Amino acid sequence: MTVSINLKRIVDDSYSIQIGPLPEINFEGKVAVLTNPKVAGLHLHTLLSRISAKEVYVITIPDGEHYKTLETIEFILDRMFDHRLNRKSLLVAFGGGVIGDMGGFSASLYNRGIDFIQIPTTLLSQVDASVGGKTGINNRYGKNLIGAFHQPRAVYIDPSFLKTLPSREFGAGVAEIVKMAVTFNAPFFEWLELHDLREGDNLLVAIKKAVETKAAVVEEDEKEQGLRAALNYGHTFGHVIENETKYETYLHGESVAIGMVMANELACECGLMERSEAERVKALLERYELPLSYPITDIEKFYQAFFLDKKSADSAITFILPRGIGGVEITDKIEADTVKKILTMFKGAGA
Amino acid sequence: MTVSINLKRIVDDSYSIQIGPLPEINFEGKVAVLTNPKVAGLHLHTLLSRISAKEVYVITIPDGEHYKTLETIEFILDRMFDHRLNRKSLLVAFGGGVIGDMGGFSASLYNRGIDFIQIPTTLLSQVDASVGGKTGINNRYGKNLIGAFHQPRAVYIDPSFLKTLPSREFGAGVAEIVKMAVTFNAPFFEWLELHDLREGDNLLVAIKKAVETKAAVVEEDEKEQGLRAALNYGHTFGHVIENETKYETYLHGESVAIGMVMANELACECGLMERSEAERVKALLERYELPLSYPITDIEKFYQAFFLDKKSADSAITFILPRGIGGVEITDKIEADTVKKILTMFKGAGA
Repeated sequence: MTVSINLKRIVDDSYSIQIGPLPEINFEGKVAVLTNPKVAGLHLHTLLSRISAKEVYVITIPDGEHYKTLETIEFILDRMFDHRLNRKSLLVAFGGGVIGDMGGFSASLYNRGIDFIQIPTTLLSQVDASVGGKTGINNRYGKNLIGAFHQPRAVYIDPSFLKTLPSREFGAGVAEIVKMAVTFNAPFFEWLELHDLREGDNLLVAIKKAVETKAAVVEEDEKEQGLRAALNYGHTFGHVIENETKYETYLHGESVAIGMVMANELACECGLMERSEAERVKALLERYELPLSYPITDIEKFYQAFFLDKKSADSAITFILPRGIGGVEITDKIEADTVKKILTMFKGAGA
Repeated sequence: MTVSINLKRIVDDSYSIQIGPLPEINFEGKVAVLTNPKVAGLHLHTLLSRISAKEVYVITIPDGEHYKTLETIEFILDRMFDHRLNRKSLLVAFGGGVIGDMGGFSASLYNRGIDFIQIPTTLLSQVDASVGGKTGINNRYGKNLIGAFHQPRAVYIDPSFLKTLPSREFGAGVAEIVKMAVTFNAPFFEWLELHDLREGDNLLVAIKKAVETKAAVVEEDEKEQGLRAALNYGHTFGHVIENETKYETYLHGESVAIGMVMANELACECGLMERSEAERVKALLERYELPLSYPITDIEKFYQAFFLDKKSADSAITFILPRGIGGVEITDKIEADTVKKILTMFKGAGA
């Protein structure tokens, strides 16, 4: 005896990303702003002056990847319940990638999903985390291993928030911009080689190009069944580095920069990339003072850590390798020995 | 400057519910079975003899609503990571409603979502929790307030698992069957009045009718924007009772039975239901030895607790009231005084 449940339907999670001065936010219901103490001190007055709603609550959580845990999610949800938010309430995630990931995740869980808006305040979150609806947390097994796909209703990118951004965090954001260009957009990469993002309107143009590049990928493959995995270029290595250094030594974008250098070495070894192309990527990253190397202490341990990365299937590790500049190859056919040969190049290397 | 993210697409989460002897489960990847010690002791050998997969792991969690927490979810996810499940792995939720809700929720969170199959072993979970994709946990603010919509790939309902079910749990399942009939299916209600579910094949027929009734509602309104809320008939009151008694005094279905009696009184008061119809519902519930009353100690406290129920909007409480037998009305227009008058009828009432 069989009963069929027919759940084929059209879902529309479209939204728009506005780049420019923060617009007015008018909302009929309750609004909870999620932020951290630092961003709040610098920019909360600006945000609050733009919000008009029935009731507004501000929830702050400590800054840093260390706090991107299920425990913090429970804390956020408890505050939302304290103030009796309901299904028609709105969460505004106001901060960097950690705030965006945890705000989106909390919104997805609260009453099985409420609306949220993202207002990213770091370059990295503006160009990367703001597009695509990936939300989640870390655990002791790795980064972003637990989470949900939950699309924001809108994203507001106001570059004026970046004026207070420390230069290391600026560089970390540039790393994700470079990532997008190398894998999907050769003309953008060439443009980046010719333009300094610290000058004039170049940054605004780069943000738009990066967001458009990522948007095209996410539209094609929202749930990362195929192409979207290519956005993890640099991340397969980067996640292991972040985990080994307990998220203390490098910013996310910095570990991605090192990860891209490692991936490029592997791509060169496999004949997918010319040495000269790998050098061009290195030169671009170096211009923004990004780290390009990481001293691996234990090759076998580093290699085994790949298997915990959620992009890896049962027994093979999936690598995202550039196919020259502007192309990309997702492959799980790289021999362990080849990978370990590349890792050995970084053994004890200076940072 | 605006970048549009176009995420309009066709999503197909259709699945089928098979009612009858448990079929073979053949799976290429890793399988994690989530169950509790009691169900495992009684039926795990049957399930394991039907599964053929690359690797099979069994995760047990303690039985009971008390353990339906974020902490237990973290425990489940940790065990899944221990065994390196990946995006192509499968979770099998094998047990009652608590196992189903937590298994589905864990599957929705692991790597941002993996497949799961439900094999409900109680009558209540077979007729109710197995249809609709609602997953989640409780917290100190109430029931199922945190969670996700995550549809199973398949549901297998094998009534032979019910042979070991205590009679109180059987009754609790019947309460949800009655719920479906009262609100959506008058002929089914009349059939229930004429057939004892403890005799012959009547139970099999009733499970099918209940599942079909719920399926029709979920197909129309998967995310509970409207009609689906009617499935909460009896739950608005029931949740408060469960919360007040700390999930210790009543089984879920038992508190729903009391909740239906309360909702019916309110419906009679509002002229939506005849006294004789309310009596017929009572008589049917009584036949399965379900509790029909609850001694409210503090009317005001009981009333205020409604506001934490996630179905309630900002300032109004949403009630699900039968419109006779086979009809339903979702309303947030009931005056506080009217509700409190009904609650007073139960003040200090014997259970």
